[in-house]
Amino acid sequence: MNGIRDVIVIGTGLIGTSIALAVQKRGVAVRLADRDAEALGQAVRLGAGQPLTAHGRLADLVVLAVPPAAVAPVLRDAQRARLGHHYTDVAGVKAPIIAAARDHGCDLSVFVPGHPMAGGEQAGPGAARADLFLGRTWALCPTEDACGRSVGVAREGAELTGAVPCELAPETHDRAAALISHLPHVVSSALAARLDDADSVALRLAGNGVRDVTRVAAGDVSLWLDVLGQNADLVAAELVTLIEDLQRAAREMRAGNNAALASLLRRGNNGRRRLLAESTGSDGGSPGNRPKAATEKTA
Amino acid sequence: MNGIRDVIVIGTGLIGTSIALAVQKRGVAVRLADRDAEALGQAVRLGAGQPLTAHGRLADLVVLAVPPAAVAPVLRDAQRARLGHHYTDVAGVKAPIIAAARDHGCDLSVFVPGHPMAGGEQAGPGAARADLFLGRTWALCPTEDACGRSVGVAREGAELTGAVPCELAPETHDRAAALISHLPHVVSSALAARLDDADSVALRLAGNGVRDVTRVAAGDVSLWLDVLGQNADLVAAELVTLIEDLQRAAREMRAGNNAALASLLRRGNNGRRRLLAESTGSDGGSPGNRPKAATEKTA
Repeated sequence: MNGIRDVIVIGTGLIGTSIALAVQKRGVAVRLADRDAEALGQAVRLGAGQPLTAHGRLADLVVLAVPPAAVAPVLRDAQRARLGHHYTDVAGVKAPIIAAARDHGCDLSVFVPGHPMAGGEQAGPGAARADLFLGRTWALCPTEDACGRSVGVAREGAELTGAVPCELAPETHDRAAALISHLPHVVSSALAARLDDADSVALRLAGNGVRDVTRVAAGDVSLWLDVLGQNADLVAAELVTLIEDLQRAAREMRAGNNAALASLLRRGNNGRRRLLAESTGSDGGSPGNRPKAATEKTA
Repeated sequence: MNGIRDVIVIGTGLIGTSIALAVQKRGVAVRLADRDAEALGQAVRLGAGQPLTAHGRLADLVVLAVPPAAVAPVLRDAQRARLGHHYTDVAGVKAPIIAAARDHGCDLSVFVPGHPMAGGEQAGPGAARADLFLGRTWALCPTEDACGRSVGVAREGAELTGAVPCELAPETHDRAAALISHLPHVVSSALAARLDDADSVALRLAGNGVRDVTRVAAGDVSLWLDVLGQNADLVAAELVTLIEDLQRAAREMRAGNNAALASLLRRGNNGRRRLLAESTGSDGGSPGNRPKAATEKTA
């Protein structure tokens, strides 16, 4: 590998701008594009890179940091304009995007679908941080069509941000994302939705537990509808399994029997332990990550 | 009010020991009791107070920091032993405890049920902190039998820890707690339970979102079974409402229609905004509270 010297980032939201800030710090030249001139201007002012102009040299890597539904058309247009040698994206769902890219006639040999497992409920370039990906897993889901050189460049791009690349099949990614990202988002939103018409006195009693449980519910609605809609079958299947567990607990609680609830709480203890042991979230202690969430009452 | 000069704390777990540490810092003498000699010894070694001995003077306030099911019998025994002038507890459910105290023949004129809205998923005296209650709401639920003097002393006790007392009816507390504490705990546990048998690759992709959503699922199982069991009807009713929202979303997602999901996400945004605006959790910036939880990917 000769090393990435310049990158084009299309989409200067939270993720795109954070990637631009991160790779610039490593000496990579960054050109930026966004159909929203204001977001682009803000990212440029933040020092994330220079605006993309016509007739520049081909970038080593083009990062499509656009919403899931936009990836395929933007990839097609970028490849037609010959913006770069290799391409990757950051969308939270992978198999449907690969299918869409194929439908759009994209060149899949130089496209390596990706998904950095980091972000924030604050959207836009103003929330971007150069250290957003430090120590985080960055999923890469190359198709059978992908050439090894493109996979290597996408991997290097992820590593330049401080992330840890993890190659897996698109379908494996989407199943995992349904469980560990999409399901929690829907459930957190459903809990937060119940607070929309809650009594003020109830909100006044709210502690850090419900704050943590509902934090992701502040996420951008249209972006999440896009992601969840593209992974709808897998997310719905996860929801149905969860609903069955909750129904069993509610039914038994009403009958004065706590056996199902006890099993749920014990499995919850175990699942939480496994999560802390096997994931790479902020409790792992990467220097750029924020401190552990505040604690809340256990009774 | 003459001011509280000495307090007895029965139960040297996280909450009892934190209360003892907090009021001691304000110059109040603290005597401690716990049926677990090891927990008591640890709290004493941490400087939370002296062990309670027979034939001491009556305390101004006796704080029962024991699990919900133990409050009534421990209150009865403490009153029979004439430990103090006034009594309060810290359990997460109130109406059933008041009923149990009545059944146990307790003197309700000097008992003011309470519930500090703070804590942590770590149990035991070792996790105690003098600043645990700083800026947090402390619910007080005096019955019609309670004398004004006892209510004043319980209020002063809460204020000595840095908490903000909030008087409300026991039934109002229990309805609010079902929504903002008990329901999120069950749902967080159900989500964490799904991780118990998850693929390792899925856990590797887990970011801060699922970490925050499942944090409270690490809570002590027997303590939570006690609390949830005592508030079972209200918690089950909240669960049923939530389940209906989730079922509607899952059904429509499977049919390729995201209308119910869109409504849930939008109401989730609104509920989250209300929570941050109206609650007193750690984002409020009280000096003793920990920093805001780390952020996670929104797509």
